[in-house]
Amino acid sequence: MKVVVYRGARDLGIEDREPAPPGPGEVRIDVAYTGICGTDLHIYHGDMDARVGDSAIIGHEMSGRVAAVGADVDGMTVGQPVTVMPTRPCGQCAACRRGTSHICHAMNFLGIDSPGAMQSSWNVPAELVLPLPEDLPLDHAALVEPVAVAVHDVRRGKVSADDQVVVVGGGPVGVLIATVAQSRGARVLLVEPDPYRREVAGGVGIEAVDPGSTDVVALVGDRTDGAGADIAFEVSGAAAGVTTAVDVLTTRGRLVMVAIHPRPREVNLHRFFWRELELLGARLYQRDDMEEAIRLVASGAIPARQLISRVEPIDAAAAAFTALEGGGVMKVLLDLQGGNK
Amino acid sequence: MKVVVYRGARDLGIEDREPAPPGPGEVRIDVAYTGICGTDLHIYHGDMDARVGDSAIIGHEMSGRVAAVGADVDGMTVGQPVTVMPTRPCGQCAACRRGTSHICHAMNFLGIDSPGAMQSSWNVPAELVLPLPEDLPLDHAALVEPVAVAVHDVRRGKVSADDQVVVVGGGPVGVLIATVAQSRGARVLLVEPDPYRREVAGGVGIEAVDPGSTDVVALVGDRTDGAGADIAFEVSGAAAGVTTAVDVLTTRGRLVMVAIHPRPREVNLHRFFWRELELLGARLYQRDDMEEAIRLVASGAIPARQLISRVEPIDAAAAAFTALEGGGVMKVLLDLQGGNK
Ligand SMILES: [Zn+2]
Ligand SMILES: [Zn+2]
Repeated sequence: MKVVVYRGARDLGIEDREPAPPGPGEVRIDVAYTGICGTDLHIYHGDMDARVGDSAIIGHEMSGRVAAVGADVDGMTVGQPVTVMPTRPCGQCAACRRGTSHICHAMNFLGIDSPGAMQSSWNVPAELVLPLPEDLPLDHAALVEPVAVAVHDVRRGKVSADDQVVVVGGGPVGVLIATVAQSRGARVLLVEPDPYRREVAGGVGIEAVDPGSTDVVALVGDRTDGAGADIAFEVSGAAAGVTTAVDVLTTRGRLVMVAIHPRPREVNLHRFFWRELELLGARLYQRDDMEEAIRLVASGAIPARQLISRVEPIDAAAAAFTALEGGGVMKVLLDLQGGNK
Repeated sequence: MKVVVYRGARDLGIEDREPAPPGPGEVRIDVAYTGICGTDLHIYHGDMDARVGDSAIIGHEMSGRVAAVGADVDGMTVGQPVTVMPTRPCGQCAACRRGTSHICHAMNFLGIDSPGAMQSSWNVPAELVLPLPEDLPLDHAALVEPVAVAVHDVRRGKVSADDQVVVVGGGPVGVLIATVAQSRGARVLLVEPDPYRREVAGGVGIEAVDPGSTDVVALVGDRTDGAGADIAFEVSGAAAGVTTAVDVLTTRGRLVMVAIHPRPREVNLHRFFWRELELLGARLYQRDDMEEAIRLVASGAIPARQLISRVEPIDAAAAAFTALEGGGVMKVLLDLQGGNK
């Protein structure tokens, strides 16, 4: 089996290893495709060495087929297409006790805290394995995990039909949020300065505007009889994105905080008070979100084909990471089996 | 009848006027007591001249008795004790259309946008008049409106029994929020630097700590098995208050924004994301909140007697305002009838 090993900043090695049989309660998966996300890129840049260590197998957006079933595992058959929910909560922390184990304070995140999906054969606990429909292409299925993030965000925002939604930031997560919100019947406007990202969004039926040339608050006002947006998603991570997302909201509007803001941001708290706005943090997903994401990808509601910009063979892993740095791509996948799926 | 007229910054006149009979749909109320709140103090300082004009009758926290009933008014009898909900929404703006007319964008606020309760006889629309229990002392009843604010805030925060609540800021609104939350069965900690305010809070059974000498986040952690507070209320209006209110929360904790922050504040949005925290603006009250406030004041759940620091006759209105500026008082009331109630 082939393994992508993160050895330190910008240093990925490809190694041949002997696959281990799955232990009790485990399933071995022949990984088909593994997507590269922003967190993987952070790791690649060396920003998370303290957490991942200096010889890590990363990756957590994946699809594959069951290759072997360990002892004490029911309901899994060899050859079955599957994906993995890569989060193992501790069960004891304040988040777990509160019924929000998806944001466990001591989370074991597969691909960060323990070996991930950038290997052609992967042993994972059976309870994290979710079956996929037989007719779902496995490259599309590699989008299930990021779609689950979007499903969770949209659920946090309580998006419903005819809501006016504004998504600030048009990277993969922003476009997926826009798509999921649109599939709920919402009217969606995406705000994104990068022309390539706007073009991709437009290509999958999402209206995207450039905040440099469009007065977003005025535009949304025009479309809502002066009221403003029901829900805004801050996915840009930029200070200006926060301002837009706050200013665009109607009375009792909801701002879902999806982006990582490494530094505190100035927030117009007076507007929160005056209009009784709501700010809701949203992170990761629950099992329901993963299951809904599988349904959305399988039904075609997610335009997976158009969002996958490149598929690189495992030997070109470093090139795949570099492509993501350069921009001009949306999702990039690694092909772990070299086309033998 | 006697009227307190706001003539400009720090200039209050006392005038004698002829009471007008109530118009159709109106009720004339002989005002017993009118409280002075932070907004009244802002007006007194000249900060709201553009809105109130230069010859205004202010005041909106009041109690009184029906003195005359206009045409087309049912169910009101002369002598009946009443209070007034001082908000008249427009019925047409985005907030009103959304079912949140209590924060109408074009609100007519009695005592700000139209004549208020600092007059011994006051004509108000009958639909804003709420009956009071006969045995409720009218000085206590003058607290109903600020209690309604606290009831609304506590409702926005979804406070329930055994929740750990932190109230940041121990002025009248903060103490009332603490009291209402405690009446719901919550465990409440008030954070307030001023020793007088902490003493008042302590006197009505609310635990109050000095943030200058207490590590509030650590203390709340100790009391919640390391988890943090379920709900925090930001009532201080200070930048440091925002930080405390964010840092003290547990996973999915709710921060209710009650204070006015005239400038944007730095907010740790990463913590909102990471812990899926919620920020909820809360302003004014709905009719249900006023009715609940009447019940709470009448039942004795609100320690009205201890919270009323001074009662001044109408002729000493200016002195009453000055007392509020000096600190060392909680609620100050004007007595509009000179003891003839
Ligand atoms: Zn946990
Ligand atoms: Zn209105």
